[in-house]
Amino acid sequence: MRDEWVFDELNEECGIFGVYDHVDASLLTYYGLHALQHRGQESAGICSTDGTQFLYHRNMGLVTEVFNTETINTLTGSMAIGQVRYSTTGESRLQNAQPLIFKYREGNLAIATNGNLVNAEPIRRQLERNGSIFQTTSDTEVIAHLIARSTYDRVEDALKEALSMIKGAYALLIMTDDTLVVAQDPNGLRPLCMSRLGESYIFSSETCAFDAIGAEYVRDVEPGEMIIIDKDGLRSTRFSGPARRATCSFEFIYFARPDSDIDGINVHKARKRLGKQLATEFPVEADVVTGVPDSSTSAAIGYAEATGIPYELGLIKNRYIGRTFIQPTQELRERGVKMKLSAVRRVVEGKRVVMIDDSIVRGTTSRHIVNLLRAAGATEVHVRISSPPVANPCFYGIDTSHREDLVASKHTVEEIRQMIGADSLSFISQEGMLEAIGRDSTAYKRGFCTACFDADYPTEIYEDTIKPYLKN
Amino acid sequence: MRDEWVFDELNEECGIFGVYDHVDASLLTYYGLHALQHRGQESAGICSTDGTQFLYHRNMGLVTEVFNTETINTLTGSMAIGQVRYSTTGESRLQNAQPLIFKYREGNLAIATNGNLVNAEPIRRQLERNGSIFQTTSDTEVIAHLIARSTYDRVEDALKEALSMIKGAYALLIMTDDTLVVAQDPNGLRPLCMSRLGESYIFSSETCAFDAIGAEYVRDVEPGEMIIIDKDGLRSTRFSGPARRATCSFEFIYFARPDSDIDGINVHKARKRLGKQLATEFPVEADVVTGVPDSSTSAAIGYAEATGIPYELGLIKNRYIGRTFIQPTQELRERGVKMKLSAVRRVVEGKRVVMIDDSIVRGTTSRHIVNLLRAAGATEVHVRISSPPVANPCFYGIDTSHREDLVASKHTVEEIRQMIGADSLSFISQEGMLEAIGRDSTAYKRGFCTACFDADYPTEIYEDTIKPYLKN
Amino acid sequence: MRDEWVFDELNEECGIFGVYDHVDASLLTYYGLHALQHRGQESAGICSTDGTQFLYHRNMGLVTEVFNTETINTLTGSMAIGQVRYSTTGESRLQNAQPLIFKYREGNLAIATNGNLVNAEPIRRQLERNGSIFQTTSDTEVIAHLIARSTYDRVEDALKEALSMIKGAYALLIMTDDTLVVAQDPNGLRPLCMSRLGESYIFSSETCAFDAIGAEYVRDVEPGEMIIIDKDGLRSTRFSGPARRATCSFEFIYFARPDSDIDGINVHKARKRLGKQLATEFPVEADVVTGVPDSSTSAAIGYAEATGIPYELGLIKNRYIGRTFIQPTQELRERGVKMKLSAVRRVVEGKRVVMIDDSIVRGTTSRHIVNLLRAAGATEVHVRISSPPVANPCFYGIDTSHREDLVASKHTVEEIRQMIGADSLSFISQEGMLEAIGRDSTAYKRGFCTACFDADYPTEIYEDTIKPYLKN
Amino acid sequence: MRDEWVFDELNEECGIFGVYDHVDASLLTYYGLHALQHRGQESAGICSTDGTQFLYHRNMGLVTEVFNTETINTLTGSMAIGQVRYSTTGESRLQNAQPLIFKYREGNLAIATNGNLVNAEPIRRQLERNGSIFQTTSDTEVIAHLIARSTYDRVEDALKEALSMIKGAYALLIMTDDTLVVAQDPNGLRPLCMSRLGESYIFSSETCAFDAIGAEYVRDVEPGEMIIIDKDGLRSTRFSGPARRATCSFEFIYFARPDSDIDGINVHKARKRLGKQLATEFPVEADVVTGVPDSSTSAAIGYAEATGIPYELGLIKNRYIGRTFIQPTQELRERGVKMKLSAVRRVVEGKRVVMIDDSIVRGTTSRHIVNLLRAAGATEVHVRISSPPVANPCFYGIDTSHREDLVASKHTVEEIRQMIGADSLSFISQEGMLEAIGRDSTAYKRGFCTACFDADYPTEIYEDTIKPYLKN
Repeated sequence: MRDEWVFDELNEECGIFGVYDHVDASLLTYYGLHALQHRGQESAGICSTDGTQFLYHRNMGLVTEVFNTETINTLTGSMAIGQVRYSTTGESRLQNAQPLIFKYREGNLAIATNGNLVNAEPIRRQLERNGSIFQTTSDTEVIAHLIARSTYDRVEDALKEALSMIKGAYALLIMTDDTLVVAQDPNGLRPLCMSRLGESYIFSSETCAFDAIGAEYVRDVEPGEMIIIDKDGLRSTRFSGPARRATCSFEFIYFARPDSDIDGINVHKARKRLGKQLATEFPVEADVVTGVPDSSTSAAIGYAEATGIPYELGLIKNRYIGRTFIQPTQELRERGVKMKLSAVRRVVEGKRVVMIDDSIVRGTTSRHIVNLLRAAGATEVHVRISSPPVANPCFYGIDTSHREDLVASKHTVEEIRQMIGADSLSFISQEGMLEAIGRDSTAYKRGFCTACFDADYPTEIYEDTIKPYLKN
Repeated sequence: MRDEWVFDELNEECGIFGVYDHVDASLLTYYGLHALQHRGQESAGICSTDGTQFLYHRNMGLVTEVFNTETINTLTGSMAIGQVRYSTTGESRLQNAQPLIFKYREGNLAIATNGNLVNAEPIRRQLERNGSIFQTTSDTEVIAHLIARSTYDRVEDALKEALSMIKGAYALLIMTDDTLVVAQDPNGLRPLCMSRLGESYIFSSETCAFDAIGAEYVRDVEPGEMIIIDKDGLRSTRFSGPARRATCSFEFIYFARPDSDIDGINVHKARKRLGKQLATEFPVEADVVTGVPDSSTSAAIGYAEATGIPYELGLIKNRYIGRTFIQPTQELRERGVKMKLSAVRRVVEGKRVVMIDDSIVRGTTSRHIVNLLRAAGATEVHVRISSPPVANPCFYGIDTSHREDLVASKHTVEEIRQMIGADSLSFISQEGMLEAIGRDSTAYKRGFCTACFDADYPTEIYEDTIKPYLKN
Repeated sequence: MRDEWVFDELNEECGIFGVYDHVDASLLTYYGLHALQHRGQESAGICSTDGTQFLYHRNMGLVTEVFNTETINTLTGSMAIGQVRYSTTGESRLQNAQPLIFKYREGNLAIATNGNLVNAEPIRRQLERNGSIFQTTSDTEVIAHLIARSTYDRVEDALKEALSMIKGAYALLIMTDDTLVVAQDPNGLRPLCMSRLGESYIFSSETCAFDAIGAEYVRDVEPGEMIIIDKDGLRSTRFSGPARRATCSFEFIYFARPDSDIDGINVHKARKRLGKQLATEFPVEADVVTGVPDSSTSAAIGYAEATGIPYELGLIKNRYIGRTFIQPTQELRERGVKMKLSAVRRVVEGKRVVMIDDSIVRGTTSRHIVNLLRAAGATEVHVRISSPPVANPCFYGIDTSHREDLVASKHTVEEIRQMIGADSLSFISQEGMLEAIGRDSTAYKRGFCTACFDADYPTEIYEDTIKPYLKN
Repeated sequence: MRDEWVFDELNEECGIFGVYDHVDASLLTYYGLHALQHRGQESAGICSTDGTQFLYHRNMGLVTEVFNTETINTLTGSMAIGQVRYSTTGESRLQNAQPLIFKYREGNLAIATNGNLVNAEPIRRQLERNGSIFQTTSDTEVIAHLIARSTYDRVEDALKEALSMIKGAYALLIMTDDTLVVAQDPNGLRPLCMSRLGESYIFSSETCAFDAIGAEYVRDVEPGEMIIIDKDGLRSTRFSGPARRATCSFEFIYFARPDSDIDGINVHKARKRLGKQLATEFPVEADVVTGVPDSSTSAAIGYAEATGIPYELGLIKNRYIGRTFIQPTQELRERGVKMKLSAVRRVVEGKRVVMIDDSIVRGTTSRHIVNLLRAAGATEVHVRISSPPVANPCFYGIDTSHREDLVASKHTVEEIRQMIGADSLSFISQEGMLEAIGRDSTAYKRGFCTACFDADYPTEIYEDTIKPYLKN
């Protein structure tokens, strides 16, 4: 499970959740978003409808901070969608909190998305030229405008038309006064799955949210599939022909909760296999295996199992750090005041330590952890990373920051090893990684997106797409 | 000055304030809105610009609750507009908090308004039919869409085009990245005035906000006038030809702060004259004159001066009641627990009391006050009202509630007297009221709107306008 | 009514309120404290008992901020006492919030007081020498220790013994598991009065709180009287023989709410008489009379009635200023940004103004107001003060700050006039003031304390008493 | 590491932390308490002194909620003590937040403790009989009164006298204006250890807090030892002769953070040995080992290592649950809405699962977890507990609730197995547990308290001690 407070880490954009036809629709959405909290801690929002009006509540903060019994009780009705969000842009962040809600000629419309479009900017410019006004900087508003300007009246037709114009990565939930529409991008970059709870239909970014509410998993939504549910029942249709399947590989490596399954593969078990694969590719003589909590624990256990080196809690994370934590001054930091991670002296002192982490982005965190372990008496520190080097920016909703900041974009593994001060450093091979996750061996790259490793982007990329990722 | 907590009262919609070219633009706007707080206690908002980006903060609550030093400091730049708002609609109220901020083809746009349009609904339907989506239920968003869809590029031309389509009562401030545009409706229904502070231009709904910041009053904005200020200086133009002047008479009677001037007439002094006129029209033998605090104090002092009956504090208002006040249960209320107003026994016991109030809307408050006075020992209670009977709804931004609820729409003065339990009841005559306020004696109805008294509406009224004011 | 935000003003310490035998004891106490809010805005607290346990809630803030329905509902039981407090001492202020609650050998004990002891320090030293530990810096804790160390078991006997040792000004309410005890100091310096609500007994610092809950005033508590109420009913006894009656005269001049009565005299009417007396003693040719809101309004109306000069709203107070108001920078203040008070130009421009205020403490506020009036165009400003010059510190619970800061302690009236920049300045005479308030003409100084005017302190004063009032 | 939200669990009372002579004393205490947060989440407090005055801040909530930069900055001075607290008593909880602060004849006194006295009640009765008044229900206030009433002037002498009267479990920090005094009870029931940071002395309940601030561990405080630090340096003395060493065994099993050392033994490693010992004593044929997060993870890894059965994440805890989480209704709970723990279907489905937990208190949680695993498809669930059955209440500061509620006090292991629905259930043997922890093999019970397992209490127990643990 990923971390709550983030400095030198990859950050997903969102988790989404939707309920069709349940008397406690907004409360179930609350529990669902709560289970998806790891996918976005910046803002949370739910919109419900009783068939005539839209009720909603959105705010900055964790799900448990944004909602209380009182607010949930005001969100009446049997249909609801919600979103948790991590956002990187500073200004006007509350405005971008989802679901976005609009009124248009056919009535009310709410949208919750996960992902990022690669051609939002030119479409937005076109819309503005035709007199549209925008209230957010979110891609999602573009979709709403395209629906509103469609010549089709039915939301599903209008959405199909809109999706034919947009490109990128997205899982989306759209709610009107009487219909829930669900869609996933043609490459299947962002996860989305379906379940039943009695007569109700439930959709979620991850299956762990189904377990939280006792819903029964049905299947993952297909790339390019659109599902429409209204009083006549559920219909599935395709808005896009066959495209390369390209699930984000970091969902397995890092983002998803270990108890979630993606395409029927359990995430924790996939991570253990990544650890075992790492052990096969890069064994080392050592006394102790430890993982960076919490996301690398599974891989570390896998590495330990495969090598027979005992797994120990060599690093401890303080769980109570939050947004209100008083950061130590530089002086205190230099004198040894730690914040989030501590190395456990009795475990690592005098020991050769294998430290498993899921990725290296800028390298500063890795250097910090290696330092912690050495200061606690480790005689050797061998770093093993359960993903290949991240050398290219992601344009599909993962915050990899500027390309220049990606240490692997400009340095060899040996250079990185020196920078982080490890005795040895190895990254899992891309082929080993794909095999360890273990999906469909016949598909191109086993159906995964590997663009951040090898720049093999599954969609078109434009100048407008790249610009925000360049340093000025 | 009007009351903060409102049950059976008239409620204005808003106060607006804008600053062009001052290093502390947002802080001045804060002080200005603070001085206009009596015009709207539900939400407050400020938007500033530094020429490239728009910074804004809006929330539910009083100005001092919505803003602190930190938030004001983030609102950098030398131009700012703000609004305080009273809103009657329940749902999604934060969404309607102003200034509304949009991005359109020419850049950023912020709008703050006071008033109400009478043809917003059909324009909105037209816009939606052409693919516009709406995020608020506010009239103001209609204006933004009309600007965005205009074929003109300059905001002043686009606004002029937009204003040619809308009808109703409005004072408005529009801010782009480099220009401030100010306009008042052709009838001059809602007040708006201009001042200078050094080189800066300042606009406000009332002059009391100029006094609060030490700005020098220049003049009131003219009906149908549009003022544009940019780097080339200030230009005044007209977007509408001559129309009947129709200032809201309740601005003098009730809404405006007593220390404000409207068209050069001080509000407190006008109210004292209303009290004197009442004394002339409806004298009575009595021992004590008292006013309903705070809005009727001036009129009561005028009545006392004219009649020689001493003015006393016969009614006291608890100033500390707020939104968080625990309301007494029905049982406690019946046993005598009071909330907001108390009658002062030692002042009224055994006395014949003249009680001055500014208006009667539903009559329930008046009955309550008469009861308070009697319970405190008043032997007679003579009620004198410094406005004529309110018998018709206002469509220009005053919340007079449903027509059926206006007691004067269905009852004679004598019937109302019986309902409120007074020994006598008199309303000032309409002619006496207009004369007492004392403006331009040559104009039609001295340049005032009297529609709520006599249904003589200065603009067209449509079915769509009236619908929301009818009980279903 | 006094002001909520205080710079150069006199500040009372507290208001107290108690209920014996009412099913809604804590809710009534809430309403009572709310009506007494003007006597203390820093903290509020209520303690109730159901006969076995004490329930309480205290915090910094206004009554409506400290309590909500939830907290009041936890304060069950039919007996309750509460306090609102203004406190001048900085450190550990929450600790001093009352009621203070203790456990001692006889059970629970809660105390709420208003006033100040003049010999608390030596008693405290004695108690500490005998092993007592203190948790507050409040005088009131001394009383609790004296009760706990008494050889008497009954709280009334123990309290009688304790009161025989303490000297000073106090009104106090003491609650045990089954008994309510009420006492006033032998000189009657601080007000306290009694009422009935059905079968219940209610006590309050001022009668306005009785009006707020519909309770029927019975009588003021006598100086040196102790009242005990338990299951056997009410008993009155005296703990002190006859002493000089010395009610604080500033209760009439400034502190009490105008709708309260003290010893059967209405405060508003007493203030009007003070204004009339001022007019008799110090008439002046002028065009307008205005009062500093809110506390001087009554006196100003009295002055206007006596002289025939019209009363006008020449000064306006912004009611929405609160603790969270962003103070203007020095620079903005010099440029004219006002905070609390504004002068109304249309009222005072070109006019000779009589400005009535209730007192001058340091003189800085008066100078500020005179400046405001002149800047708004007043041609002459004549200041009339409805109390004699305050030249001596109060040791009985009024915060007159250091003696050196009292402008009248070192300057003549003419010097003060020059300092505040008035055209003329007059203070009411002490005799005129006492006569205007109008109580018992046969008593020494009509039964009032005048120590802050003439240093005639009704109790002994010790070195320990004076020390905190000297600047070091 | 123990859990943050607690239903059917053991709860420690406190963690304490103190700093002598550091310029950032209160900030270091903040970081120290933050590292000790797992020992108490209900309230937090810090008191510092600059040699003349005591500054303090205490409130309900987590350390990061109670303190911010502003509050820490007000806590000036180079000496500070603090406490985090878990408290079971409902009423007046803020009053019991520590450090308690008193004024007594020698000046200021602050106390922070961890533990529980067994004879506080009779001492308290004696003190009250002699006129002491109490403001809290805390044992700690008794110690303060004993110090205040001592005939000795020096705090260390007075404390020595006080400790000669009290019995029970305690680690305590006492701060006066110039001295820090530290003491541990004669049996060493509650942990306390010492470190240096440059010239400063630092004390803490656990060593993990030293790691957090970079302080160097020196040694554990000895049972019956008192340490005094003032301007003359550090002195160690004994206030009690030799007694049976009886460290709380649950510190190793459950309470302490896994990265802490107690008496030089790392807690995580001790837990792994407990798991291995369990495997030796109670092996089972199974497919998967899983631990109840987070406290049983180490033991589960040990069990897996010893048996060769793979360790998997079969149970997941939602980390974002907090006090504000909306609890599911009974109906939703029955329909499958989970709160804190989820079983991972892909991991346990069709598998024989060994589930390791640290203890069984009432048994309801164990039953719940067994149900979760079965519902997720586990074919067999074998429960292994890393402590012996808890059959007796703890009187030394651990909240074991009423004796009747301890399932092991009335039921055999087989009965408990049936109640929780496991296929097999085994508790580690007491001897095995003591050996696995691995301390001094020559001491009686290896120097551990085992009272909750075998009722062998290391101190006297009185009727007053037992009473609160009986159900009425």
